[in-house]
Amino acid sequence: MSEFRFELVATDGAARTGIIHTPRGTIRTPAFMPVGTAATVKAMLPQSVRETGADILLGNTYHLMLRPGAERIERLGGLHKFMDWARPILTDSGGFQVMSLSALRKISEEGVRFQSHIDGHAEFLSPERAMQIQRQLGSDIQMVFDECPALPATHAAIEKSMALSMRWAKRSKAAFAEQTDEERRGRACFGIVQGGTFSDLRVRSAEALKEIGFEGYAVGGMAVGEPQAAMFDTLDATVPHLPADRPRYLMGVGKPSDIVGAVRRGIDMFDCVLPTRSGRNGQAFTSEGPLNLKNARFAEDPSPLDASCCCPACRQFSRAYLHHVVKSGEIIAAVLLTWHNLTFYQNLMRDLRQAIAQFRLESFAAGRSTFMEDETSA
Amino acid sequence: MSEFRFELVATDGAARTGIIHTPRGTIRTPAFMPVGTAATVKAMLPQSVRETGADILLGNTYHLMLRPGAERIERLGGLHKFMDWARPILTDSGGFQVMSLSALRKISEEGVRFQSHIDGHAEFLSPERAMQIQRQLGSDIQMVFDECPALPATHAAIEKSMALSMRWAKRSKAAFAEQTDEERRGRACFGIVQGGTFSDLRVRSAEALKEIGFEGYAVGGMAVGEPQAAMFDTLDATVPHLPADRPRYLMGVGKPSDIVGAVRRGIDMFDCVLPTRSGRNGQAFTSEGPLNLKNARFAEDPSPLDASCCCPACRQFSRAYLHHVVKSGEIIAAVLLTWHNLTFYQNLMRDLRQAIAQFRLESFAAGRSTFMEDETSA
Repeated sequence: MSEFRFELVATDGAARTGIIHTPRGTIRTPAFMPVGTAATVKAMLPQSVRETGADILLGNTYHLMLRPGAERIERLGGLHKFMDWARPILTDSGGFQVMSLSALRKISEEGVRFQSHIDGHAEFLSPERAMQIQRQLGSDIQMVFDECPALPATHAAIEKSMALSMRWAKRSKAAFAEQTDEERRGRACFGIVQGGTFSDLRVRSAEALKEIGFEGYAVGGMAVGEPQAAMFDTLDATVPHLPADRPRYLMGVGKPSDIVGAVRRGIDMFDCVLPTRSGRNGQAFTSEGPLNLKNARFAEDPSPLDASCCCPACRQFSRAYLHHVVKSGEIIAAVLLTWHNLTFYQNLMRDLRQAIAQFRLESFAAGRSTFMEDETSA
Repeated sequence: MSEFRFELVATDGAARTGIIHTPRGTIRTPAFMPVGTAATVKAMLPQSVRETGADILLGNTYHLMLRPGAERIERLGGLHKFMDWARPILTDSGGFQVMSLSALRKISEEGVRFQSHIDGHAEFLSPERAMQIQRQLGSDIQMVFDECPALPATHAAIEKSMALSMRWAKRSKAAFAEQTDEERRGRACFGIVQGGTFSDLRVRSAEALKEIGFEGYAVGGMAVGEPQAAMFDTLDATVPHLPADRPRYLMGVGKPSDIVGAVRRGIDMFDCVLPTRSGRNGQAFTSEGPLNLKNARFAEDPSPLDASCCCPACRQFSRAYLHHVVKSGEIIAAVLLTWHNLTFYQNLMRDLRQAIAQFRLESFAAGRSTFMEDETSA
């Protein structure tokens, strides 16, 4: 199979399970993509990430363009070789990070001028530059360059920003189309729906993207602090306007309950730093709900972190040991809890895929509501 | 094999290769023991430590008594189970750390009162308490409690300190002998020769320890900043006075050239934080000499860290990648360089054992002199 292709396997209500075929391997959907910001999923070796069940990673255009640089990675043979991950990689376009991390941003029709958050160096991102970088990295799924406005904002402000993102989406697609046949072979370009929490803008954005035409469609501008209900409302308004035969990706989301709710609304792909970042902070997702390993009640607890999990943290160590290494600031604490959290997320995706294939997603989601509700008190 | 036993396999000049048999597994000598200070070899999973070739780890009585506490580890089933390392563990007695890390030390004939460097808590270590802690941890090789004086010091000061350490060695052995048969089964107690760089004191100390009688003999009080030549001179004066049929352990040493020189003088066991600590600081030991991965000359170097090494860092990644993750402060940099450095050390020990068994240690050591000399400029 040398082309990019989405195979729908089964649906259950609005939810779907399928397979994305790419030259670098298949991606089982609904899929969770661990975040490999700076060419590493923090604290993990690539083979360990694969062992958790990940089919695809996310790489960050913004971080990689600043360090070590896209041109350098290209000369070294591309991102896959550089970070020793032979399977698919999706790269974002830098639009989100340029807003959240960089200094002295100046947005124009052309693109965004900004200063690197690492060394203050002057940088520039535009649809054309973002697509060039993603080509240099050798990304399998390349995202259009978009503007991510801060929420809350007025309808007029979001409308203006969305319209700019749609013009940028068109330029991004054109830049992607100019990659050589050899470069583009089996690679995909995804559009990103914007429009904040305004349903009318989301619908207009989705229609504009369909008019351009993409191999997949993302919902962007979420996971920026809005309540879960607002995100679900936005998905309810948006997803019906996305083509059924293309993968749908909810960017930057989320907590397990966010993912379950979004899958029920027809989302196929997710990425989030939560499992990795939480792992480095002593937090674990478990079948009993989230646990903070710093808590003194674990100091002499001989039981495994999660008896239903088969990751190394749960198979080899006690909660007492994990508490000890978290309290001691040991590197192995970050390694073990990241490994566990990624395993938890991948097991959740596996269970969701299976539930959809067996037409029992609603009862599965209801059965998981207990640990979902616990999260807010974590 | 249920008893502790040292089997001498071959000698080459003063150097020896052998096997220490213990109920928890065999230790091939000369052996390097990675340091697992706080119940983890920093940045490594135990199975990864084993993959580097380690037969035995070192645990720190001082650190473990303070956090999580020896009583707690005993209730949780002992140190081996706690940290998931089923093979032999040697524990130091805390004598060295109480001098180098703790505050407000007060030494008396009875022992040492001090404050924890973690929380200022008042603590006490004595020969009896140190042996009790090592029993609670379930240590396979337990070290006597000794005083480690700072160097340089006068002959009179070192003599007085050494005499105290010898009285403590006698009390340590008596406390070890009071452990039940079941507890002591297959476990060993090692004496520690003190005496600074004074040959006459080293000889007297060795004789005093032989009089008490131990399963093995360590040379302590080295690796505290003295020149390599002074350490070798001390070994030349000391080792001939140690029993040939017992293992000899040079505590806290050292650089690769230190180890080669000490093996040539008849030392069988080593421990040192150098490979692990260097790994966390971006330093790698290689067959070309030590390399600092922070150096900009590696930024686009596609070659492996050490082409003759088969660890994951060398097999899967380029120097350019290692440079990138070191510069970015990524956890995986510490993991990969620690893994590599421990592999380098274990490969050195394997090569030393083979060279001794084949009666070609002198030519082996001469052939290694190039990378040894490079070290000083690292």
